[in-house]
Amino acid sequence: MTKKRVAILGSTGSIGTQALDVIARHPERFEVVALAAGRKIELLAEQVARFRPRVVATADAAGAAELTQRCEVAEAPLHGSAGLLAVAVESRPDIVLAATDGAVAFDAVFAAVDAGIDVALANKELVVAAGELLFARARAGGARLLPVDSEHSAIFQCVDGEPAERIASIILTASGGPFWERSADEMRNATVAEALRHPTWQMGVKNTVDSATLMNKGLEVIEASRFFKVPGDRIHVLVHRTSVAHGFAIFTDGNVIGQFAPPDMRLPIGYALAYPDRLADRLGIDPLVALGGAADAAATVLRFERPDLERFPCLGLAYRALAAGGTVPAALSAANEVVVAAFVAERIRFGDIAPCIAGALDAVGRSELTLEAVRAADRDVRRAAEAELERRSLTPIRGGAAGLG
Amino acid sequence: MTKKRVAILGSTGSIGTQALDVIARHPERFEVVALAAGRKIELLAEQVARFRPRVVATADAAGAAELTQRCEVAEAPLHGSAGLLAVAVESRPDIVLAATDGAVAFDAVFAAVDAGIDVALANKELVVAAGELLFARARAGGARLLPVDSEHSAIFQCVDGEPAERIASIILTASGGPFWERSADEMRNATVAEALRHPTWQMGVKNTVDSATLMNKGLEVIEASRFFKVPGDRIHVLVHRTSVAHGFAIFTDGNVIGQFAPPDMRLPIGYALAYPDRLADRLGIDPLVALGGAADAAATVLRFERPDLERFPCLGLAYRALAAGGTVPAALSAANEVVVAAFVAERIRFGDIAPCIAGALDAVGRSELTLEAVRAADRDVRRAAEAELERRSLTPIRGGAAGLG
Repeated sequence: MTKKRVAILGSTGSIGTQALDVIARHPERFEVVALAAGRKIELLAEQVARFRPRVVATADAAGAAELTQRCEVAEAPLHGSAGLLAVAVESRPDIVLAATDGAVAFDAVFAAVDAGIDVALANKELVVAAGELLFARARAGGARLLPVDSEHSAIFQCVDGEPAERIASIILTASGGPFWERSADEMRNATVAEALRHPTWQMGVKNTVDSATLMNKGLEVIEASRFFKVPGDRIHVLVHRTSVAHGFAIFTDGNVIGQFAPPDMRLPIGYALAYPDRLADRLGIDPLVALGGAADAAATVLRFERPDLERFPCLGLAYRALAAGGTVPAALSAANEVVVAAFVAERIRFGDIAPCIAGALDAVGRSELTLEAVRAADRDVRRAAEAELERRSLTPIRGGAAGLG
Repeated sequence: MTKKRVAILGSTGSIGTQALDVIARHPERFEVVALAAGRKIELLAEQVARFRPRVVATADAAGAAELTQRCEVAEAPLHGSAGLLAVAVESRPDIVLAATDGAVAFDAVFAAVDAGIDVALANKELVVAAGELLFARARAGGARLLPVDSEHSAIFQCVDGEPAERIASIILTASGGPFWERSADEMRNATVAEALRHPTWQMGVKNTVDSATLMNKGLEVIEASRFFKVPGDRIHVLVHRTSVAHGFAIFTDGNVIGQFAPPDMRLPIGYALAYPDRLADRLGIDPLVALGGAADAAATVLRFERPDLERFPCLGLAYRALAAGGTVPAALSAANEVVVAAFVAERIRFGDIAPCIAGALDAVGRSELTLEAVRAADRDVRRAAEAELERRSLTPIRGGAAGLG
């Protein structure tokens, strides 16, 4: 088997490190040709020493210099946007794993698909903000875009090989987060510590708060619309507390196909990297365990509930942003980032998150979708969100607001 | 769209009539070119008048004569094995629906696949008894074999497009039948009327008793092994009382794909007839309803339990027959038919079904698989089963035993 050449943008983050874990278990399948990371130089140096990529990039020149001291590198480390571009394209990978947060790697990912290089997409902001542009460019460039998120990997597996016109609708499952059993009153003043207690998945702070508001699911609805060419009114969310089922496709003939897996990101990462093949490293799974049961149990139960848009208004905001289209999804994603950071910094209450985002979106409006317009909407909405936050702030603003953008 | 030319073997049975119902709803897609039925001539005459097939066949000459009187036919009706052959092959269909019971249409189906004609298989006995031969002949003839049974349609949809070596294991769901909540003692003397109370599916008498013993699931395990080239030790059964989920495939990478549909045979029939396309006649399904919930419910629950081979020894008999291979699955299927008929005739108790079958199987042993050997095993095991029945009979034998074979 020819080894698949893999480049990773964001190798020291949660997705990046788990991807390297998958790759390390399959040295016969994968070869790491390039790694880009931000400021965790010590970890990056360990990765370089272990996987020996030819191309390495850091966020800045200081990081590149530090890396050279910490480990042997085949070629001088690059940095900044030139570094990202070298990792994504010039290293000539078969597949790029886009696992950076935010907008930092947008240009590098567009360049990869323009060059016909497949991209495994873990960069949610990119799909939400510019998914339509990215999918169009990938089609033109002859590149495949593969989801890494567990819900989208689920749907991708359910619909693989079926044309989009046969998909009647999509169901994404949501864990419901830490507040699913709470009343609206109880949620209003929920603390940051409470919001960070996620029932099933281990994730970063921002994603965990997004899971408490269900904004994560709203952003995934937008992503699903881009990946599977299905409008928002045919993408449903069902709350499924145990995160065993990740998504379902309902076909036009009434048949429903669903996907199930343990809550372990290495499965969707491995699926995306190996696609169109599958890895063969999890054999002998007990049938009841496959559906979320315990190995010694006699039965297992999967429960699905309708979501509640009254208690979780962020989900409704996402549906509205998707319906509005243009730059509104990009603005939603950016406003959410700023507002969630303010909640984590205890500047606003949990109940203020949705109104702040809604206010910021109203302030900036909608433009037609271009990459320039996305950047402008991102910048404008962050400013508008700050204004909303000031209006609702519990305490005087602490200096760090600039760090949010 | 070119209309797909459909021939039906067994058009007046449960599957045949439901297939014609599907076809009648899609006159733009399907054209009925040939129909074969047994002795329900009045119903066949209605079908001929409505669908106007060119080729029609009945079980015998008297039926053919009656049909000519009851309706206008394009060509003189045929009968017997020549009639089945004309329907399956000479009518030049794109697909044959094999929906007869027992062995009557074996030769016609083999002739169809030899001629490269796709077959939608609802004839369980054929797949159980001679599946390996049939699949080999279909591959040589360039014909596709499509499952019609809901569980196999489920697995087919889960694995479509994936090579067999990526399937780690298969899960078939079982409703558990009317006796799932009973103790072994209560089951031993269960009445025919009790055995015929199936919780979810409407089926014929024999299939319903098979569902009470779980022999239906055992036969489906054998069928699944033929369809998907997976050995019995990697085909699992889970009891799922509500029959919403029909089957799951566990892939080698740990991902699990499952299929869900209402208990309506027109879905798997429509899937098989339309394959590789899908019909587009069931739109707007509510997401909770898609997973078995009520339209006005807030939640739905899917429950899966391990089966119990102690209370349901017929399931174990089927696994053993599959492991033994050769003519043993054919013998199992035939012995079960004879023994179930004896139970329905109140000659034996429910608890005698499995021991009678086991005794008959032991008496005939195993031969290598050929069509001739299958016929010999079928004949021998029916005689052996009769001997077992006589030994255990509750009442003197009633004359009708000859009608069973």
